[in-house]
Parts: sequence; structure tokens; C-alpha cells
Amino acid sequence: AEEKKKKDYEDEGDIVERCKDFMSVPVTDIKVLQERKQEMSTKMEMLIMETQAEFCKALQEVDGGTFKVDRWDRKEGGGGISCVMQDGKVFEKAGVNVSVVFGNLTEEAAKQMRSRGKVLKGKDGKLPFCAMGVSSVIHPKNPHIPTVHFNYRYFEIEEADGTKQWWFGGGTDLTPVYIDKEDAHHFHKTLKEACDQHHPQYYPDFKKWCDRYFFVRHRGETRGIGGIFFDDLDSPNQEQVFKFVKSCARTVVPCYLPIVYKHLSDSFTAEEKDWQQVRRGRYVEFNLVYDRGVKFGLATPGSRIESILMSLPLTARWEYMHEPPKGSREAEMLEVLRNPKEWV
Amino acid sequence: AEEKKKKDYEDEGDIVERCKDFMSVPVTDIKVLQERKQEMSTKMEMLIMETQAEFCKALQEVDGGTFKVDRWDRKEGGGGISCVMQDGKVFEKAGVNVSVVFGNLTEEAAKQMRSRGKVLKGKDGKLPFCAMGVSSVIHPKNPHIPTVHFNYRYFEIEEADGTKQWWFGGGTDLTPVYIDKEDAHHFHKTLKEACDQHHPQYYPDFKKWCDRYFFVRHRGETRGIGGIFFDDLDSPNQEQVFKFVKSCARTVVPCYLPIVYKHLSDSFTAEEKDWQQVRRGRYVEFNLVYDRGVKFGLATPGSRIESILMSLPLTARWEYMHEPPKGSREAEMLEVLRNPKEWV
Repeated sequence: AEEKKKKDYEDEGDIVERCKDFMSVPVTDIKVLQERKQEMSTKMEMLIMETQAEFCKALQEVDGGTFKVDRWDRKEGGGGISCVMQDGKVFEKAGVNVSVVFGNLTEEAAKQMRSRGKVLKGKDGKLPFCAMGVSSVIHPKNPHIPTVHFNYRYFEIEEADGTKQWWFGGGTDLTPVYIDKEDAHHFHKTLKEACDQHHPQYYPDFKKWCDRYFFVRHRGETRGIGGIFFDDLDSPNQEQVFKFVKSCARTVVPCYLPIVYKHLSDSFTAEEKDWQQVRRGRYVEFNLVYDRGVKFGLATPGSRIESILMSLPLTARWEYMHEPPKGSREAEMLEVLRNPKEWV
Repeated sequence: AEEKKKKDYEDEGDIVERCKDFMSVPVTDIKVLQERKQEMSTKMEMLIMETQAEFCKALQEVDGGTFKVDRWDRKEGGGGISCVMQDGKVFEKAGVNVSVVFGNLTEEAAKQMRSRGKVLKGKDGKLPFCAMGVSSVIHPKNPHIPTVHFNYRYFEIEEADGTKQWWFGGGTDLTPVYIDKEDAHHFHKTLKEACDQHHPQYYPDFKKWCDRYFFVRHRGETRGIGGIFFDDLDSPNQEQVFKFVKSCARTVVPCYLPIVYKHLSDSFTAEEKDWQQVRRGRYVEFNLVYDRGVKFGLATPGSRIESILMSLPLTARWEYMHEPPKGSREAEMLEVLRNPKEWV
């Protein structure tokens, strides 16, 4: 009980104090955040800013480099903070992006935003909305350190009658170049433990959703070894879902950093680097051809292209008819991507 | 008249003899081609095979390397011949692909195939179709030698009442890393001369269409400096359009090879190579996000992915917030891509 109290205090501690640890001042004015302290949009903005700062600092510590911090405004309302480290010692390209955008959606756009495609009634066809999230893709140099991606997001849409529709989405997934069963187990187990605190079906359901979502159909392979993915989460209630999302967001560092440290000094050959570059090409294919967030972003007027495409690797390679020899470690990786496994 | 006679003889010369110069035996059985000598599908298959051979041989001559020739079958009907040269002396990746596919389309798919979206009536909803074309993308190593792309294609669809819909499409366009006005003029002038033999509006109309089609909307830039692009061409008559397409196909070598030879020994810096890699990234963005052919191919069951994605460069690069310094040659290139010019 004592610990719970402490945690609640932490979460709802002084906004000004908490902001001091962020990579930048938040998108929303601090005074506004203080006034709307109890609102979910404030709680979530604080969480995504915290997640960005925690993750960036952990990465800076292992790399020795520093994130470049860009604050940008969106003409139509809101803005974001993009943190990018390029050509570091450990990371080829690391991007951690926060965005908080608001404005009006058309009914058609609102429908598209929601994966279940609910019909939403706007006032004169317009729907005030607010969308925010933290998203990150980390591409390390060493082919034995996997790429990681995570994204946690929150949406609010106000209908004509004043009712607010809201939902959360998110996920964390790993894309290794070579399969390391111990890493895969650690990654999935850490996610499962976070999920299990909230609902016994979350991990199994969201693990399957992740494998389905990150499927590169034209290649017949998943992008990586998955993790969790969920969207449109709006039950049992706002506070409970937020707590689940918070657990997920706080699990990013313990999921990924131990894997980075473990392989930090692994030696690698030119051939292994080559295979990494080929896999990076597949990563680009998924992101540009299938990723809903990227497609939505590229098609949205006024979106910040550089922040959306931050997820692309620094370098990639496309070899015609690349097929690893049977029994090789490259073939072993492909086998896993063609037949997703249970890791816990 | 004497010359015209000679040309007609050439075009409709002995099929067996003509096939000897190809990179592989044609997709369609030679006997079938001989029996259907007068049909447009035969004339076009011979033209695309000839174009492939002529272009591959010209590239081999300048590079010193050899194309790898893959013949593939499509389970649902037809097949193709992919010629790829990778990591050559001059060319980083050169692909010249022929495909001849046939089968049945659904009414919906048939509608999508045609850019004007004509409604086509099938027998029990099915429409027998035949689609063939030659397409090529050449990525040279030297950043002073531009990338070239061309594609010439022919479609036939049979409606329920037995009427055959047919049309041609195609184009040739250039993507330099640095602008060379002389090259741009030569390239466009060569295309214009080929077009002008057939219709005074072809070049101006198809040049505009090309700039519009190869526009990377989210970047606000064209992919390259254009050339010509057309689709759905079905007038004044089949023979006339075929003659135009033939002129275009035969103009690929004179458009491109003089530019390759001119820059063959140009020296370049690491920075110039870097800018080339950034531009390659944009090329990938266009091909995966916008290109109709790629999108159609990736979504079509049974299509040969390796031949579709042959157009991607061997290597590419995405730098966060890359912006060339004002007054640099890189900025000069961007300026042209942001404001397409008239070159003739």
C-alpha cells in the first residue's frame, strides 16, 4: 500500500518538476497541463514524454553519443519532439519521437483512423480530435544487436452530441538479424510479465496480433520476431487501459537494453554486415508498403515527413534473388520469420 | 519506299531467325508465335524481346560484365525473362525484365488495370486477358551517371461479347544525382524526335504526364528529370500505336548510352557518393509508395516478387533532415526536382 501510494504520488507529482527530466519542454504548454492535470490527455502526454526521456538516456549511456532534439510545430494544431542519434558508436540510427496533434477530422478520416472502422457522427461533418504517441525505431550497427521498435498512442474524438470516443494502441517488437533464442525469450517474457499484471489474455492475444500485423505479405515473412501489438483498446475503462499502457511503456528499457549490453562487443564479419543490410531492405519494404502509421502519415497534409521516415535505417541493400545457403545462420533466421514461434 | 520495304521485312522477318538474337527463347512457344505472326500480341512480344536484347548487349559492352538470365513461369499462365547484372564495373544494379502473362481477370481487377477505369463486362464475371511488357531500371555506380528507367507494355482484354479491348502504355525517364543540362537536353530531345514522328502533341503531353506520374508527393519533388510517360493509348489504331511504341523502344539506347559513355571516367568524391545514396533512398520511396506497377505486382497473387523489386537499387541511405547547403550542386539538383523544367 505504501509503495502504491508512492507510485501514485510519482505519477501525479508536480508537473513542473517532472518536466525537468524531459528531452524538451512538452508539446502542450506546462500551464495548460497543470490546469488539466486530471485529464487523460495530460496523463498520457506526461507518460510519452517520460518514456522518450527514459529511453533516450538509456541509449545515450550505452552509446556515448547524444540525441539531437528537434521541436516542431504543426500548423493545424500541436507538434512534436523528435530525438535522433545518427552514426553513433553503437547505433547507426536511433529515433525516438513524441507527437501531440489536434484539430478537426472529416468523418471519413475519423473512420479510417480507427482500425475497427466505427462510424462517428461529427458536427457539420467535423470531429475535433486529439492524437498523441511516442514511437521509436533503433537500428544498431552491430548485426548481432537487434533492431527494436515501439509505439504507444492515445486518441480522442468528440462527436456531435459531445460524447468523447477514446482508445489506446501500441506495441513493442524486435527485429534481429540473427536469431538468439535467449534474447527472444527474454524479450517476450518481459512483455508477458507486464501484460499478465493486467489481463491473462493480453500477452497471447497481442502476441498473435503482432505477428499478423508485421507480416510482409509479398515476402511471406514477418518483419521480425514480434512482441506485442494492440489497437482500439477501450475497456474495461480509461484508467485501467492507461495503467496497462504505462506498464508497457515502462518495459521498453528492460526489454531491450540487456540485449544491447549482451552483444555490445560481439565481433562480426563483412558477410554478417551484408545480411544485416539485406534485412534492413525488408524493414524498409514493410514500413513503406504496409505500415498503417506511415501510410496515414504520408497521406496527411501537414504531417512532418522527417519524423515519420525517421524509422527507416541509415543504409539498406537489395540483392536480386538473395537466398542464404541451407543450414546457415541466415537460413535459420528466415525459417523463424516464415513460421513465427512461441518464445515463452 | 525501298527503305520502308526493308524495314517491314525486318520487322516481320523470320521469327526463328530473330529469336536467335534474344537473351533467351521467348516466353511464348516459337511455333505459336509463327502461327500467330500477324497478331499484335506476337508483334509486341517480339518487340519487347528485341528491346531487352538490344539494351542488355549495349550495357554489357560498356560494363564488361554479363547479365544473369532467369526464365520463370507463372503458374496461372505465362512467364518472363529477367536479366540482371549486379555489382558490375559500371553498373551497381541493372535489371531488364520481360514478362508475358495471361489468364482471367475479375471485373474489379480489370477496371483497376486500366487507368481510366473503364467498366468491362466479363463472361460470368471473368475476363480473359493478356499483359506483356519490357521494363528496366539501371543504377550505375558513378554518381555522375544517371539512373534510367523505361517500360513499354501492351494489354488485351476480351469481353463477354467477344470484343477485344487493347491498349499500350510506357515511358522512359532519367534520374540524375547531379544535373547536367547537356545530358537533360540530349535525353529529352531524343525522346521528342521519336514522338514527333507520330504526333506533334505526344512529346508535350507525355512529358507533362511523366512529371506528374513520377512525383513523390510527401517530398514535394519529382523522382528525376522525367522524359515521357503514357498509358491507355488506343488511338488512332492498333498498328499506328504499335509503331509509336516501337519508335520509343528503339530510342532507349540512343537516349541513354551516350550519357553513360560521356561520364564513364568522371571522378567523384565520397560526398558525391553519399548524395547518390540519399537520392537512391528517394527512388525507393517512390517505387514502394506510389508506383502503380509495383503496387499492382505486390498485390497480385503469383507475381514474381524478385522481378518486381529488381528496380530497387543495390544500396540506399536515409539521413534524418538531410538538406544540402545553399548554392551547392546538390541544392541545384533539388531545385530542378521541385520545379520541373522544359529541356527542349
